[in-house]
Amino acid sequence: MFGGGGGGGRKPLDYEELNENVKKVQYAVRGELYLRASELQKEGKKIIFTNVGNPHALGQKPLTFPRQVVALCQAPFLLDDPNVGLIFPADAIARAKHYLAMAPGGLGAYSDSRGIPGIRKEVAEFIERRDGYPSDPELIYLTDGASKGVMQMLNTIIRNERDGILVPVPQYPLYSAAISLFGGSLVPYYLEEEANWGLDFVNLRQTVASARSKGITVRAMVIINPGNPTGQCLSEGNIKELLKFCFHENLVLLADEVYQQNIYQDERPFISARKVLFDMGPPMSREVQLVSFHTVSKGYWGECGQRGGYFEMTNLPPKTVDEIYKVASIALSPNVPGQIFMGLMVNPPKPGDISYLKFSAESKSILESLRRRARLMTDGFNSCRNVVCNFTEGAMYSFPQIRLPPKAIDAAKRAGKAADVFYCLKLLEATGISTVPGSGFGQKEGVFHLRTTILPAEEDMPAIMTSFKKFNDTFMDQYDGYSRIIQYYITPSVKT
Amino acid sequence: MFGGGGGGGRKPLDYEELNENVKKVQYAVRGELYLRASELQKEGKKIIFTNVGNPHALGQKPLTFPRQVVALCQAPFLLDDPNVGLIFPADAIARAKHYLAMAPGGLGAYSDSRGIPGIRKEVAEFIERRDGYPSDPELIYLTDGASKGVMQMLNTIIRNERDGILVPVPQYPLYSAAISLFGGSLVPYYLEEEANWGLDFVNLRQTVASARSKGITVRAMVIINPGNPTGQCLSEGNIKELLKFCFHENLVLLADEVYQQNIYQDERPFISARKVLFDMGPPMSREVQLVSFHTVSKGYWGECGQRGGYFEMTNLPPKTVDEIYKVASIALSPNVPGQIFMGLMVNPPKPGDISYLKFSAESKSILESLRRRARLMTDGFNSCRNVVCNFTEGAMYSFPQIRLPPKAIDAAKRAGKAADVFYCLKLLEATGISTVPGSGFGQKEGVFHLRTTILPAEEDMPAIMTSFKKFNDTFMDQYDGYSRIIQYYITPSVKT
Repeated sequence: MFGGGGGGGRKPLDYEELNENVKKVQYAVRGELYLRASELQKEGKKIIFTNVGNPHALGQKPLTFPRQVVALCQAPFLLDDPNVGLIFPADAIARAKHYLAMAPGGLGAYSDSRGIPGIRKEVAEFIERRDGYPSDPELIYLTDGASKGVMQMLNTIIRNERDGILVPVPQYPLYSAAISLFGGSLVPYYLEEEANWGLDFVNLRQTVASARSKGITVRAMVIINPGNPTGQCLSEGNIKELLKFCFHENLVLLADEVYQQNIYQDERPFISARKVLFDMGPPMSREVQLVSFHTVSKGYWGECGQRGGYFEMTNLPPKTVDEIYKVASIALSPNVPGQIFMGLMVNPPKPGDISYLKFSAESKSILESLRRRARLMTDGFNSCRNVVCNFTEGAMYSFPQIRLPPKAIDAAKRAGKAADVFYCLKLLEATGISTVPGSGFGQKEGVFHLRTTILPAEEDMPAIMTSFKKFNDTFMDQYDGYSRIIQYYITPSVKT
Repeated sequence: MFGGGGGGGRKPLDYEELNENVKKVQYAVRGELYLRASELQKEGKKIIFTNVGNPHALGQKPLTFPRQVVALCQAPFLLDDPNVGLIFPADAIARAKHYLAMAPGGLGAYSDSRGIPGIRKEVAEFIERRDGYPSDPELIYLTDGASKGVMQMLNTIIRNERDGILVPVPQYPLYSAAISLFGGSLVPYYLEEEANWGLDFVNLRQTVASARSKGITVRAMVIINPGNPTGQCLSEGNIKELLKFCFHENLVLLADEVYQQNIYQDERPFISARKVLFDMGPPMSREVQLVSFHTVSKGYWGECGQRGGYFEMTNLPPKTVDEIYKVASIALSPNVPGQIFMGLMVNPPKPGDISYLKFSAESKSILESLRRRARLMTDGFNSCRNVVCNFTEGAMYSFPQIRLPPKAIDAAKRAGKAADVFYCLKLLEATGISTVPGSGFGQKEGVFHLRTTILPAEEDMPAIMTSFKKFNDTFMDQYDGYSRIIQYYITPSVKT
C-alpha cells in the first residue's frame, strides 16, 4: 500500500510506480540487439559493433592536432616545461594558450552555462563563413553533444500529450525517445525510399491535417540532413519547400545537421537550413523559428566520447532565449574539454600553420575512406538476394531493405519477435555483426530494414560484406520457399 | 492564431507558448545577482565570484597526477614518443595505459551509457573500502557531473504534480529547479538554524502529514550531507533516524553526498547514508530504496568543468535499473574524460607510487587551506553587526544570517526587490563580491541570509572579509535606525 508503513506493498522506485513516460521510452540503438551483442562479447565472441555511429570504437584514429591542444589544456603545467617543444608543435602550444586564456580557471572550472564566450564566437564565425550570413554568439549555446541540445529544445516545446512533433520515419530514435520522455506526441512523416528517401509534401500536408483533426497541436518539425539512418542529402529545393511549409503551418524547424561534414557525392553538397532560409529573404527569413544542431561526434572528427556540440537559435524571441539559458544553468555547464573540441573543429589549422599539412592529410584520408566504404557497402548489399539499398550520400549509415519471405515472418512470429529483429539476431549470432533492426527507426508496414554504420575499417569491409552475404544466402535458402520471380510480385515496392 | 497561417499571431517558441514547467523553473545560483555581476565585469569592475562552488575559477590549481593521466589519454600517440618520460612520470604513463585498455577506441568513443565497466568497478571498490560493505558495479552509473544524475532520478520518480519530493530548506536550487522542470511538487522541510542546521523530526512528520492531507503523494526525500548551502555534517544518529523515517513513510532517499571529502572539523566525520543503512541490518537494509550521488567537481579535486560523477542504487529492483539504463542511453554516454577523472578520484596514487608524495602534499594543502578559510569566514561574518553564522563543518559554503533592519526591508520593497536580493546587490556594487541571496535557497519567513563559497584564495580572504565588514557597517549605519539592543528584541532567533 502506498504512503503506508514500510515493507509492505510497492515502493516508489518499483517498476509499477515509475513515471509512465520513462517506461514508454524506446531506444533501439542500444536495445535488444545491443544487449545480446554485449552478452555474446562477454562469452568471447568477436562482435563488430555497427549499431552506433562510433568511429573511434571501430579503429578510426583521432586527429592529432586537436588532441595535442586539449592534452596541453588538461596539463597546463606542461606549458612551462622546457621539454614541451620536444613533443608538441608550436601551433598546438599557441592554441592551448589561446583557449586557456578564454577559460578562467581552465578545464577544471564550470564555464558559463551557455559555454565559453570566446568559443561561441568562433562557432559564429564558422557559421558566417559557411552560410554567408552573420551569426550572433549570444544565440549559440554549447552542449554536451548534440543529443543533449535536442532534448532541451523538445522539453522546451512540449507542454502536454497533445503537442505534436513531426519526425521523419525512418528516424533517429533520439527523437521518439525524447518525445516519449517529455510526454509529447510523435507525428511521423514518411520519407520515400523509392525517391531516395526524399520528402513527399502532399503526404506531409495530409499527415499534419490528420494529426490536427485528432486534436494534436503540431508545433515543430524535425529534419535530419544528411539523413540518419537513411543517408540522403536534401536538395536546396527540398529545404526551401519545407521552410515554406513550416512558415505556413507555424512550425519550429529543428534541423539536425550533425553529419554536415560527411558527404560522399558531389552532386548535392550540404546546405544548411539557415542558409536557405536567409537566401529566401523576408518575411520568411525573419519569421521562421529555427534551431540547428551540430556536434564534434560525427564528421571526420568522430570525437563521440568527448561530448561536444552546439545549437544555434534563429528568430527566437529574447525572452525564450533567456528561458533556455536558465534551464541550461540547472546542470551548470557543458563539459569544458568538449567545448574546446568544438572550438577546434570550427577553427582548424590554416594553410601556413605548422600542423596544417598533417591535419589536412589526416582529415582527407578519413573522408576519402568513408566515401569508398559507403560505396563498398551499398554495392555489397545490392548484390545480395532480397536486399535493396539506396546509396549513402551522406552521414555514416547504410539502411538496406531486406525483403523477408513470408516463412521468415512466420518463424519470427512464432519466436515472439518482430521479423526484422529476428533477422538481425540471426545475423548477429552467425557473424558477430551487430546492427539495428529497421523497426527501431520506424518503417512502413510490412517493409523491413536494418541499419549498419559504414564505419568498420576499410580493410575489414570486404570480409564483413562476404560474411553478410553468406549469412543472407543461408537465411534466404532456409526461409524463401518462393522463387525470386514470385517474390517480385508480392512485395509492394521493388527497386529493379 | 495558433496552427494557422504563418506570420500572424504567436509562434511555438514565443515565450507565451513554452512549456509552463520550463517557465516555472527558478535557478538563483546563476540568477539576477550573477547576471548583474557579469555585466559589471564586462564594464571592467573586478568581481569576486563566490556564487558558485567553482574552486579552479578562484585560483585553485588542479592536482597534477590526474591531469597528467588524462592528458596522456587525450594524446595516446605520446605513449610511443621516446621523449614522453621527460615530461610525464612513469606511474602516470602506466595509469593512462590502464584506462585506455578499459576504453576501446579511447576518449573519442562513446562508452556504454552507464559508463566504462572498469571504472564502475573502481568506484565499487572505493565504496566498499569506505563503507565496509561490498558494492555492485552494475548498480553504479557514471554521469556528466552529479546534477545530471539527480535530474535523471527525479525525472524517473515524478509522475505528475501530485508527486511530492521532500527537500531541505535552505536547499541547493538544483532540486527546486529540477522538480519544477519535471512537473512535481516540492515539499520543503526546514533545517533548524539554531540547532546547527540539523533535522527536526517532529516538524518533518508534520510536513509529510500536511502534504498528504493536501493530496500530495510524498515519494522521495532529499538530503544534502555535508550541507549546501548550510555546511553542516549530519551525525550518524540523525541519519539513522531519517532512514527509519524513509522506511516507515515509504520514501526513496536521495543522498547528495558530493561534499564527502570536504570536512573541516574532527567531531563529525562524513558517514554515508548507505553505510548507516547497512549497519542497521534487515529488514531496513534490504528495503529502503536509496540513491547516492558523488562527483569530481567538489572535494579537494574541484574538477567542475570536467563533468564527472556517479550515482549508486541500493535496493532498486532490476527492472527499474534497466529503465534507468534505457533513459541514460538516449544521450548515448557520459563524457569519457570525466569518467576517467572519476576513476582517478576513487583510486588515487598509493604509498610507494612515484607520484604519491606530490599528490598527497597537493591534496593536503588544499584541504587544510579550506579548513582555515572556513574558520576565517565564519569568524569574519560573526564579527559583523547584525550578522550571525554557523561554522562551516563541511562542504564549501558559508551561509550567514543577515538581520536586515525594517528600514532596509522597506527600501527593498520600494525598489521592487526581495530584501536579501537588495542587500546582495548593494554588496556586489560596493565590493565586487558576488553572492547568492538566501531566498534562492529558501529560508523562513522574515529571516534573511546570503550564501558565499569559502573558495577565494586564502591570501585574499582577510581583504575580502574587511571589505564585507566595511560595506555591512555602512549599510547598517544607513538603514539601522534602532540600536543593537533593540534589534535583539525584534528578531525572532538570536545567537549570542
